[in-house]
Amino acid sequence: MAEEKVDIGITVKKSDDFSEWYTQVIQKAGLIEYSSVSGCMIIRPWAYSIWEKIQVFFNKEIKKRGVKNAYFPLFIPESLLKKEAAHVEGFSPEVAWVTHAGDSKLAERLAVRPTSETIMYEAYSKWVRSYRDLPLRLNQWCNVVRWEFKNPVPFLRTREFLWQEGHTAFASQKEAEEEVYDILDLYKRVFEELYAVPVMKGKKSEKEKFAGALFTTSVEAFLPNGKAIQGATSHCLGQNFAKVFDIKFLDDNKQSQYVWQNSWGLTTRSIGIMIMMHGDDKGLVLPPKIAPLQAVIVPIFYKEKDKVLEEAKKINDLLSTSFDVELDSREEYTPGWKFNEWEMKGVPIRIEIGPKDIEKKQVVVVRRDTGVKSFVPVAELQNTITKTLDDIQNNLFTNAKKLLDSNTVETKDWAEFIRAIKDKKIVYSPWCGESECEECIKDKTEGAKSLNIPFNLPKKITEVCPQCGKPAKVWCYFGKSY
Amino acid sequence: MAEEKVDIGITVKKSDDFSEWYTQVIQKAGLIEYSSVSGCMIIRPWAYSIWEKIQVFFNKEIKKRGVKNAYFPLFIPESLLKKEAAHVEGFSPEVAWVTHAGDSKLAERLAVRPTSETIMYEAYSKWVRSYRDLPLRLNQWCNVVRWEFKNPVPFLRTREFLWQEGHTAFASQKEAEEEVYDILDLYKRVFEELYAVPVMKGKKSEKEKFAGALFTTSVEAFLPNGKAIQGATSHCLGQNFAKVFDIKFLDDNKQSQYVWQNSWGLTTRSIGIMIMMHGDDKGLVLPPKIAPLQAVIVPIFYKEKDKVLEEAKKINDLLSTSFDVELDSREEYTPGWKFNEWEMKGVPIRIEIGPKDIEKKQVVVVRRDTGVKSFVPVAELQNTITKTLDDIQNNLFTNAKKLLDSNTVETKDWAEFIRAIKDKKIVYSPWCGESECEECIKDKTEGAKSLNIPFNLPKKITEVCPQCGKPAKVWCYFGKSY
Repeated sequence: MAEEKVDIGITVKKSDDFSEWYTQVIQKAGLIEYSSVSGCMIIRPWAYSIWEKIQVFFNKEIKKRGVKNAYFPLFIPESLLKKEAAHVEGFSPEVAWVTHAGDSKLAERLAVRPTSETIMYEAYSKWVRSYRDLPLRLNQWCNVVRWEFKNPVPFLRTREFLWQEGHTAFASQKEAEEEVYDILDLYKRVFEELYAVPVMKGKKSEKEKFAGALFTTSVEAFLPNGKAIQGATSHCLGQNFAKVFDIKFLDDNKQSQYVWQNSWGLTTRSIGIMIMMHGDDKGLVLPPKIAPLQAVIVPIFYKEKDKVLEEAKKINDLLSTSFDVELDSREEYTPGWKFNEWEMKGVPIRIEIGPKDIEKKQVVVVRRDTGVKSFVPVAELQNTITKTLDDIQNNLFTNAKKLLDSNTVETKDWAEFIRAIKDKKIVYSPWCGESECEECIKDKTEGAKSLNIPFNLPKKITEVCPQCGKPAKVWCYFGKSY
Repeated sequence: MAEEKVDIGITVKKSDDFSEWYTQVIQKAGLIEYSSVSGCMIIRPWAYSIWEKIQVFFNKEIKKRGVKNAYFPLFIPESLLKKEAAHVEGFSPEVAWVTHAGDSKLAERLAVRPTSETIMYEAYSKWVRSYRDLPLRLNQWCNVVRWEFKNPVPFLRTREFLWQEGHTAFASQKEAEEEVYDILDLYKRVFEELYAVPVMKGKKSEKEKFAGALFTTSVEAFLPNGKAIQGATSHCLGQNFAKVFDIKFLDDNKQSQYVWQNSWGLTTRSIGIMIMMHGDDKGLVLPPKIAPLQAVIVPIFYKEKDKVLEEAKKINDLLSTSFDVELDSREEYTPGWKFNEWEMKGVPIRIEIGPKDIEKKQVVVVRRDTGVKSFVPVAELQNTITKTLDDIQNNLFTNAKKLLDSNTVETKDWAEFIRAIKDKKIVYSPWCGESECEECIKDKTEGAKSLNIPFNLPKKITEVCPQCGKPAKVWCYFGKSY
């Protein structure tokens, strides 16, 4: 068994070589396979089913709010993509271009969508005529392509990824802005309640906002390797795109008005954040709410095989009604091999059952997060599993929150700011908010960016910006970021 | 109200100008919008939610069978696509090619996937080592692109479409073939039980089989305009791809073997088939099992508005627990306008409630398929709705089945064969099965193709092929087809 463990286990510690650890986990846990197109990854079933759980939650929430799912074309004609100047500037360096179909050269190049504002808003201008047509709230789940030339990192930075993109149009700025924050709260819930990853809500700086937006809000997380990462974004586009795409409506006074628009997106990057956050030296650790399996049952049948298997099936039937559970009855693997495999795959709870347990009418319950083992009477099993899954979910979140809190440094002092960034911390600091100053911060800290500006700032800010000495307008989070 | 009706109604009869009728229905019912990329359509929420219902059913069924969902890259390097000779010959005339990313020319052209055999099987060869790794059964829901140069027909023939593609590998031919037929049965159920469209199961001719397959099975439908159409296909790929992509396993005798593979797909084309089948001169007619809304409640409030609205809300709450139902309480539209709109959108049942109905503790229930109106006591409403939805589902299927049966001509005579094709019928005829003969049939009938060869053929076929006079090997369906 020791031999098997070496074979399938992670060969480096997370704390020693984070990057190699991650590369091994995503492959050995069966989440990712590399493809022959550089930067494009295969999302294997174990990872894809996490995405499906996110979809179920998110679809339910947005449908409750009146958002409807649709599907818009993958291809965007070059002329259409270029209609909004700031937007095309942000995206065109990364666009994959289709130039030929079969043997024919196309009359106009087609962009493989990096995002769908332009192709969608062209249609919105046909659909919106009157205030009766508003709000128009659509979402699509799809693939997008951004041909980055930086090193790919599976889930976090890949040339193709999956996401949802919501695109909405409202009659008033007020309604639009309310939605921006409402969806941002939903993203916070996805990260905190499902992925057990604490995030900071806030507004992006002018420099970091979405290409073409009035303002961008985001949730940001902090990873155990000392890097911050943007989790999801909810943009208020204002009337920028409405003016370019001529999306107008007659209000109830028969006046022609431009709509107010938002767009908001959550990507498969979120899976990578969760993996990095919770995984340990044995592999993946999954929060129960998004785990493809919440518990796995491993029968221990050195002897009395039939009897043990029969009992294990009963346990499986008992739990299947309430949990995602699987009985691993494979005979070609030893229990020890299975323990290692399911630990690698991060299943929250392992249930062992052998001849002695059957005698005692109990099973062994092992938690993936803490490794704690307990003997549980079969009669109490359902309640114990429910409680233990809750405990695991909370424990993962609490640990991640401690990590975030203990790595956030609040300072007004420039020397401490620089030192904290060097120590791989997040800095919370007063700031003038100017893009020029942000450039200086980046240069002087070897790469720290503004993450976001929280919404619950003090009414009056009396501090000065530690970098430039001008009066601070906001408090802002800074850090080195993916 | 007459004015409004003209404005939103279909202006041609289905029987007079089928093509124009279809074009109007898909737009006026809010299913499709054209985009600025020729041949690429926007699938609007009303159509997309039908697709979501298909996904729920199909996912449940395949997951029950042990198939898992995954996601493979959109792009396939040219060299990879070209590995299987028959396969590339079938697809390359329709491939959209990515040649540039940003300002850089790519070293190798990338195909936008027309189907994913090659990109998936490259990975399968890494994953399959031993009989323990089999069966390997994956599915993905995604977009694919086939740059056809024929006229696009929304849903039926578009350059980008959505589908599921299942790709599986087995240790034995027997297991693989069993799956081919099992999945074909599932497709039959999708068409017959959900879409209420009767289909013919069978095997494709050599000429019409999938590029690279050992054999192809299909379900075929017959449309009211006299055209047949392929509904979905389930292919046995044999060991063709396994040999090209070197997908081998050690069997339990430690012998190296090639796997047996299948692939199978169902596309958004199926939505178009359903629309064409059931729609009428008032617009779309939706089978209850895939309707985004099964019933709509229209309050009639010329007077006593608050009271009517309150009762309507009660009815809505009552029905919401069991059905997909919506209360259309919009005040800016008249009841007549709403009737027309919901008829256009094909909602199976309309429930009207006005002051007089409230007095009598009843509502008016109107069926979309027959137009039949009945007064139903509120106390009986849930049962009546359940029963009526069943009736509508069955009625639509029965009508479509009659259409199919009355348009299928069984003949052994060549003159009758030609006449029947000219009369826009399906022909069921003995056949030699040869590709050369199939070409002759196509020429002599101005376009009829073999549809498929049913599985339940008589053991001994004594007839001759009516076209070429050679001994028939099978009976086969022929028709003009999309």
